[in-house]
Amino acid sequence: MPYVTIKMLEGRTEEQKKALVEKVTAAVVETANAPAENVVVFIEEMSKNHYAVGGKRFSDQ
Amino acid sequence: MPYVTIKMLEGRTEEQKKALVEKVTAAVVETANAPAENVVVFIEEMSKNHYAVGGKRFSDQ
Amino acid sequence: MPYVTIKMLEGRTEEQKKALVEKVTAAVVETANAPAENVVVFIEEMSKNHYAVGGKRFSDQ
Amino acid sequence: MPYVTIKMLEGRTEEQKKALVEKVTAAVVETANAPAENVVVFIEEMSKNHYAVGGKRFSDQ
Amino acid sequence: MPYVTIKMLEGRTEEQKKALVEKVTAAVVETANAPAENVVVFIEEMSKNHYAVGGKRFSDQ
Amino acid sequence: MPYVTIKMLEGRTEEQKKALVEKVTAAVVETANAPAENVVVFIEEMSKNHYAVGGKRFSDQ
Repeated sequence: MPYVTIKMLEGRTEEQKKALVEKVTAAVVETANAPAENVVVFIEEMSKNHYAVGGKRFSDQ
Repeated sequence: MPYVTIKMLEGRTEEQKKALVEKVTAAVVETANAPAENVVVFIEEMSKNHYAVGGKRFSDQ
Repeated sequence: MPYVTIKMLEGRTEEQKKALVEKVTAAVVETANAPAENVVVFIEEMSKNHYAVGGKRFSDQ
Repeated sequence: MPYVTIKMLEGRTEEQKKALVEKVTAAVVETANAPAENVVVFIEEMSKNHYAVGGKRFSDQ
Repeated sequence: MPYVTIKMLEGRTEEQKKALVEKVTAAVVETANAPAENVVVFIEEMSKNHYAVGGKRFSDQ
Repeated sequence: MPYVTIKMLEGRTEEQKKALVEKVTAAVVETANAPAENVVVFIEEMSKNHYAVGGKRFSDQ
């Protein structure tokens, strides 16, 4: 606790995901008064045909 | 905003998903007083072995 | 099935929510080949201090 | 209703998932005063590179 | 890990919720090969005006 | 995009939440190659009777 879910388009590298998880965890520790070992991060990737803004999927653009 | 997540069994065609996203976005725009460009839609597909009603998975039926 | 979650800022009237649920359900029935009685809709309301774009909460604007 | 989502690392067998869904459904029926046919269970699997505790992904350990 | 989210209509007593959490945790421990101390359960309650089946909210029935 | 959901026990001050949202957004911008204006953050607060680890709710401890 806290539990952080990051939903984003697929395509980031493993290095990016590793850094993302580290920096977001550090930001939560710094501001939410939680010890690092209690911070959980989930990444959820979306494909372009499953994500739309304004009624238009990214795979249709 | 609003953010709409549609969770359903896998198997719809791309044409169905495209129409689903368009029609759901239009329904939100019409009723929730939101401009189309602010409506976000996510599709999440489930496989039959990860979805159960009454304790029975769809892959076990 | 399908399961639709609509996340939005609080403040819509009951009439708006009622219409939203009806129209979104109709849109899913029409496009996703699902009978109406299988379509489930959840509304989740956010308060302005729990929603941020670009690092700025709506309550801070 | 109720709707139960179980998020866990990938790797369980189909037999484990089948038993998981059955036992969790029975636990909900027993304690939440819901008929079995109304209990819905979703399984969501995570890969090790998308799950971190303490800022460290399971794929980096 | 695993993380279990139980979404249901509001109205259960604290005793029911306590038993629900205990029994669901036990079911996960028994079937998913996870130690009890790693099983996390979240309860999310819905109000009747935010939940619809077949396009009809429970507050409108 | 990305969409970040932070789930935590209620009790943080508005100042903490404001800082949390700012720092997490900055961490995502720095590592995930996303412009700040595309980063969305949702906070979801849990009460102690709706959150359990090891089958024990925080309200029962």
